[in-house]
Amino acid sequence: MKEILKQLAAEIDSYIASDPYPEQIAPPYLRDAVRDYPMRGGKRLRPAIAVWSCGLFGGDVRRAYPAAAAIEIFHNWTLVHDDIIDDDAVRRGCPTTHCALAAHAKADFNCDSGKFGRDFAILAGDLQQAWAANTLLKSVETGVSPALTLALTRKLYEQAAREVLSGEALDVEQSVRDLKGISAAEVEHMLFLKTSSLLNFAAQAGAAIALNDPEFVRPEVKAIGEFAANAGIAFQLRDDWLGIFGDFETFGKGIGSDLSARKATVLLLKTLELLPDAQAAELYNMLGRENYTAKDLETVRGFMRDSGAECRIIDQAAALTANAREILAGCPDNPYRNLLDQLLTFLVERDR
Amino acid sequence: MKEILKQLAAEIDSYIASDPYPEQIAPPYLRDAVRDYPMRGGKRLRPAIAVWSCGLFGGDVRRAYPAAAAIEIFHNWTLVHDDIIDDDAVRRGCPTTHCALAAHAKADFNCDSGKFGRDFAILAGDLQQAWAANTLLKSVETGVSPALTLALTRKLYEQAAREVLSGEALDVEQSVRDLKGISAAEVEHMLFLKTSSLLNFAAQAGAAIALNDPEFVRPEVKAIGEFAANAGIAFQLRDDWLGIFGDFETFGKGIGSDLSARKATVLLLKTLELLPDAQAAELYNMLGRENYTAKDLETVRGFMRDSGAECRIIDQAAALTANAREILAGCPDNPYRNLLDQLLTFLVERDR
Repeated sequence: MKEILKQLAAEIDSYIASDPYPEQIAPPYLRDAVRDYPMRGGKRLRPAIAVWSCGLFGGDVRRAYPAAAAIEIFHNWTLVHDDIIDDDAVRRGCPTTHCALAAHAKADFNCDSGKFGRDFAILAGDLQQAWAANTLLKSVETGVSPALTLALTRKLYEQAAREVLSGEALDVEQSVRDLKGISAAEVEHMLFLKTSSLLNFAAQAGAAIALNDPEFVRPEVKAIGEFAANAGIAFQLRDDWLGIFGDFETFGKGIGSDLSARKATVLLLKTLELLPDAQAAELYNMLGRENYTAKDLETVRGFMRDSGAECRIIDQAAALTANAREILAGCPDNPYRNLLDQLLTFLVERDR
Repeated sequence: MKEILKQLAAEIDSYIASDPYPEQIAPPYLRDAVRDYPMRGGKRLRPAIAVWSCGLFGGDVRRAYPAAAAIEIFHNWTLVHDDIIDDDAVRRGCPTTHCALAAHAKADFNCDSGKFGRDFAILAGDLQQAWAANTLLKSVETGVSPALTLALTRKLYEQAAREVLSGEALDVEQSVRDLKGISAAEVEHMLFLKTSSLLNFAAQAGAAIALNDPEFVRPEVKAIGEFAANAGIAFQLRDDWLGIFGDFETFGKGIGSDLSARKATVLLLKTLELLPDAQAAELYNMLGRENYTAKDLETVRGFMRDSGAECRIIDQAAALTANAREILAGCPDNPYRNLLDQLLTFLVERDR
């Protein structure tokens, strides 16, 4: 699966790289910024879900390439704006867009380079959103009917964009609220919007292209969308779990950083909900430290384990995974089903 | 004309107000922010150009309403992001989106409210861009063919969005460059991208809907696009002129603010180009003051007049206006032509 994923990623990369859209963007450093994230590589999970969902239902996978590329570009523009909002400096091992643009300003202009970087990164993300729309609209060029192309674009903007951006907004809001007032259910809802919505769209887009279903009413289309959405939530729950229970050697220094950031994860909130008051207060008071010793972490892990929260999260992820696997089992038995099954395993069993 | 414009504005307002798109945005204050600018009124010049260009070529004007509303929403999201970039506090007499959201954060959250306001305003603009796409795609519901609806959306994102955002980027870049290195031609190019591109699209969209021309190849479609683009540049040149030569009583305290901001206007750059070195240096040294006395302004006006720059700007605007009027004269003689003619006069002869 990893080899085939790599090959698909290379094809989507070259589809994006050969798109003349960014060429006419001025000034040149903004053009380069627009190309930057979409060309930085990465696993291309969303394109894989779109393309393989198309193949799963017997579609010509090349027809799904514009949609797959559009979804990847769409995902990347949300990252550019997220990185400004989160004040992040590094993305996939390189400077974030706003930091790279700030460095450019520092070299060439006499101005507040931080602000310049953020301002131009806003515009870069805006252009990428426009580029994503344009790329999806090019589906007609690979034989997708005009009606389905319209329906896909409408669905991306009417549903996925609105949900992804609402999810991002709720995430930012949760980061400035006191954890005591946030429920685990609220965080799950946020994760569904922020992560699963675009995965759901990717899968439905692929299936709708295969089945030529502009109304997205075929049970196969709905089912594969649910498959991807469930995989997304299970992935997120695993991510939260790894952030506390992961192996220091494998997962690296990220362990405990969610605690430092007082991040409202389902795991943490569930623990606070289930613990007796005194212990919940103790855990609450441990949040926000710059560093956690191995002993601190053991204490936190103990709370999460003993409260039963860890178990619940693991069970919840397992149930979502089982549901996703059951959906796949009901789909046509072909190599694409096998690839999607392996992708699911990869997402929910990774240890870093 | 003003009465009919007001009536059309009311219809577009009610079209936008009745759109359920923003309803499902979370959290509620972000939903309100997304609705804010598009519902704040304003002249609705872009919708008028779209709708009347449709009527001009015999189209059913109602068919152009989704496009007209989409263009207005599109214009408004660029304003939301521009206002963050320009650090502006007021828009149409009310707080800008990021300032309104900052005030909300101050009341409800314990965080850096300025940053919160900017972050959420980024997301509000992003959602409005998605909303604009969705609105344009609804053109099929008013009888525009799927092929033309696709073509309109493609043109908005492939051409107008890219040009408008490149124009905005060049504008920001010019604001941090030394005026000595910027040519009047560069500023004209920026204005064309930033302002005329969307006006051009509005007119072409209306005409293409009337003539069902998904390739935008009919001479009428090209001509009316040029009409709107020329009107846009003439409007901007007039705006720059009013910023220096306008009447204090009528134009208000904005007179001279371009000088305070060292704004790279065509008028200023042309003056610096044409003046003898010593006087150019004198004018250059007068820039960036917080306030200008009536005497200072008279000195600046003298430079602009005596260098011949004022005349050139006025001639240039007049030539663009004449060209726009000539284009209209070649169009069908009907009430919509009359409305567009009056709109042109209003744009290029206004004194505030």
